Amino acid sequence: MPSDPIDLHPFDQATRVMAEGSRLTGETSDLYWAFVGPFGGATAATMLRAALQHGERRGEPLALTVNYCAPIARGGFDIHVRLVRANRSSQHWSIELVQGDEGVVATATAVFAERRPSWSHQPEAMPDVTPAEQLPSLPSDRFSGWPRQYDFRFASGGPHFAATLNEEAADARSAVWLADSPPRQVDALSLSAMADAFFGRIFHVRGAIVPFGTVSMTTYFHVDAADLAAEAITGLLGVADAHVFHKSYADQTAELWSPSGRLLATSQQIAYFKA
Amino acid sequence: MPSDPIDLHPFDQATRVMAEGSRLTGETSDLYWAFVGPFGGATAATMLRAALQHGERRGEPLALTVNYCAPIARGGFDIHVRLVRANRSSQHWSIELVQGDEGVVATATAVFAERRPSWSHQPEAMPDVTPAEQLPSLPSDRFSGWPRQYDFRFASGGPHFAATLNEEAADARSAVWLADSPPRQVDALSLSAMADAFFGRIFHVRGAIVPFGTVSMTTYFHVDAADLAAEAITGLLGVADAHVFHKSYADQTAELWSPSGRLLATSQQIAYFKA
Repeated sequence: MPSDPIDLHPFDQATRVMAEGSRLTGETSDLYWAFVGPFGGATAATMLRAALQHGERRGEPLALTVNYCAPIARGGFDIHVRLVRANRSSQHWSIELVQGDEGVVATATAVFAERRPSWSHQPEAMPDVTPAEQLPSLPSDRFSGWPRQYDFRFASGGPHFAATLNEEAADARSAVWLADSPPRQVDALSLSAMADAFFGRIFHVRGAIVPFGTVSMTTYFHVDAADLAAEAITGLLGVADAHVFHKSYADQTAELWSPSGRLLATSQQIAYFKA
Repeated sequence: MPSDPIDLHPFDQATRVMAEGSRLTGETSDLYWAFVGPFGGATAATMLRAALQHGERRGEPLALTVNYCAPIARGGFDIHVRLVRANRSSQHWSIELVQGDEGVVATATAVFAERRPSWSHQPEAMPDVTPAEQLPSLPSDRFSGWPRQYDFRFASGGPHFAATLNEEAADARSAVWLADSPPRQVDALSLSAMADAFFGRIFHVRGAIVPFGTVSMTTYFHVDAADLAAEAITGLLGVADAHVFHKSYADQTAELWSPSGRLLATSQQIAYFKA
């Protein structure tokens, strides 16, 4: 554990896991606050970190599913981490976030793997978009809470949210250059958070901010630490889209691309909406 | 519990959950056998069924993540089901499949929700493919095990597996009409299995069957029982694709479409391969 948390990047501070003996705890961050609780990406990264820094953990993040069971209140929480199964080159972990009398507020399963060399193939190329440096940043005063912790440069499908709902559905797809603000080198932890760093697809298609909450999110990591070290990037291209909005739930797919054209992670989530 | 399991469809037989007091058990099915264990779709459906038939379950399947932790041996297993969190209109369940001395061989998390009416929107139409009735069925003697329990009619990307690996990667995408064989009306349970009823994408791109195993699979259900009753279908169009094959792991995306053009479910999985 770092001796002086003040030196930490705000993301590492917000997703810190503290150990007192075998008890693991964390705390919500006001900087990464969302509508009615912490930014889901910060919660995901905190839960992944709790398993990642466990002494028995072997291998690198391969898959992470986070289920957002209930609103998380401002303040502290406990993190229960359990190694469910250890194989020769992979591990399965179960993680629960527990808050006071509320009980379990989030659950997660994580798979870690020691990735061996193999044939490599990426069928599709990164979308051809305007480079980040030629695009303006979204003004950071336009939103409060967690969006201020990222630099957003929309190549397409930017936020145009009004006070009333669209009559006709707008495009659900956005391509946006994402970076931590201040910059931070991308690792598995920040990928697990950036997978959730998109505005709700329902806001885009209906052109307005409506009640919304992620229910479950799954992220697959397509690179290991060596691959990420070779990229050594602080920003990436996020592409988000949706298949369907129906009976109060909608999905979201996300691709996270390195500027060099490498697919770092893919993610999907299912979210509640009221519209 | 049905009094005479002989009357059950093979799928319902293979995914049966038996209750003795509070103990839940199941058994692998030889009909739905895969290379080194049961068909992952049957395991997923069995775990979903264990929660679905629990007395405290409310709402309908919204999200299901299954982690395949270790090979499941032929024979019986216990299923541990736990209601982690119940909200006003949603529930979070945790499910574990435990086998003798092996311990936990699979874990799952399931979200159930009472789906309320809302604005509906499906941005993309079903792919325009040849209707099922104009396509030949894959000869059922071409494969052993679980593929014989489905009728496959490939509209594109059919299996052309040889003894040696392709030099050049073939297309990872398949569009295939899928139905239980014998026919069975599609419900959430069969959707949870059909989400896994694709041949490994690595077999398609490399043109050969290589060591392969699903590690984790997540399925989102975009319809409820009323929607499925309105469709009343026994077959659907499955579209599978992949983003990346790298360092022994590859992803797979899947869309399950009703013949009427409605997106019933989407799924993604991450799988190990050796090639």
